[in-house]
Amino acid sequence: MKQIAVILSGSGVFDGSEIYESVLTLLNIEQQGAKYHCLAPNVDQMHVVNHLTGEVAEGEQRNVLVEAARLARGEIKALSDANPADYDALIIPGGFGAAKNLSNFAVASSDCEVNPEVASFTQAIHSEGKPVGLICIAPAMAPKLFGADVLCTIGKDPDTASAIEAMGGRHQACEVSETVIDRDNKVITTPAYMLAGSISEAASGIGKLVEEVISMA
Amino acid sequence: MKQIAVILSGSGVFDGSEIYESVLTLLNIEQQGAKYHCLAPNVDQMHVVNHLTGEVAEGEQRNVLVEAARLARGEIKALSDANPADYDALIIPGGFGAAKNLSNFAVASSDCEVNPEVASFTQAIHSEGKPVGLICIAPAMAPKLFGADVLCTIGKDPDTASAIEAMGGRHQACEVSETVIDRDNKVITTPAYMLAGSISEAASGIGKLVEEVISMA
Repeated sequence: MKQIAVILSGSGVFDGSEIYESVLTLLNIEQQGAKYHCLAPNVDQMHVVNHLTGEVAEGEQRNVLVEAARLARGEIKALSDANPADYDALIIPGGFGAAKNLSNFAVASSDCEVNPEVASFTQAIHSEGKPVGLICIAPAMAPKLFGADVLCTIGKDPDTASAIEAMGGRHQACEVSETVIDRDNKVITTPAYMLAGSISEAASGIGKLVEEVISMA
Repeated sequence: MKQIAVILSGSGVFDGSEIYESVLTLLNIEQQGAKYHCLAPNVDQMHVVNHLTGEVAEGEQRNVLVEAARLARGEIKALSDANPADYDALIIPGGFGAAKNLSNFAVASSDCEVNPEVASFTQAIHSEGKPVGLICIAPAMAPKLFGADVLCTIGKDPDTASAIEAMGGRHQACEVSETVIDRDNKVITTPAYMLAGSISEAASGIGKLVEEVISMA
């Protein structure tokens, strides 16, 4: 059975992992006969957003690993305790957490840096020739993770696409139900909630991404 | 298009709505051609549980509506602002939130009380002859909501089944992939994570429950 690492960034679209994307990723991994393993960095969130109002909750602080544990029913491991050699592939769902907690793309755009633990784990998976799937805004980290010329998609948003190209990546526009595959790098990306108008739209592309990641693992 | 109310109780299995059950409910509602509407009571959670350690986070407080908004991508309404006449059916996912925030079943067992807003909304839906689906531990509220003799399941846990019978309900053991239907009361229940060993096991019963709720709406 193929073992798939999933890096989460909290629990909630505005300050963590997008919940529907994460759950659909886990469901598809299991339904396609593989096993998922949730991981997250043990760091503070950039901030906490009140998801009812959309406002930053001033003075409140939450931990990425502790909140991501909600999405994993407690079955999660700190990224620092995980060995890339134990997994056959990696998938990173989206949500602002990918751009606020796993990297600082949300504030630094093409000058962003990726969390060192996330970068070293992902690069180890990649350097062992294993596939990496990135969903929604997570592909904005691809040029920093895999170097120039990596091919990926965040859907059709021109500003995000330009930032990816400013970092040396190659962006390809993509429908919500489709994926972009960089076969040389074994990097698979899909827009999900960068474009999705509904949960079933997000499900369509995520289902394909998971299938492709597993088939290449 | 049928309009389905979904009452959430926070976001996280140990102190709120079970995330997988909730997302699978929303996904199935949409995939079966109906529209979901997330609702939650605007009340404090009974407590906050650190989902990494399983311990209560002493001194921390979160609001049910604000946390449930994470599960709804911000698209949620306070239960007090919702009109039962606007919906064709109601589904309440499980998670400890149903037994800690929507009721106090987790601490009071058969002496439990249901939150008054949850009770009046649910009873209004029921009295209009519309179906109600209850998932996982949520059926423990059924006797208090619908009166004696209501037929329901929480799977096979003998203590919870006894508590339901002590309140005057009728409990029927049920596999995770199945539902129990009380046709007179239009109450449909499924065990989900009261029994599920995996997300796809939970998905099997929830898919059936949503289909039956929609077909009876």
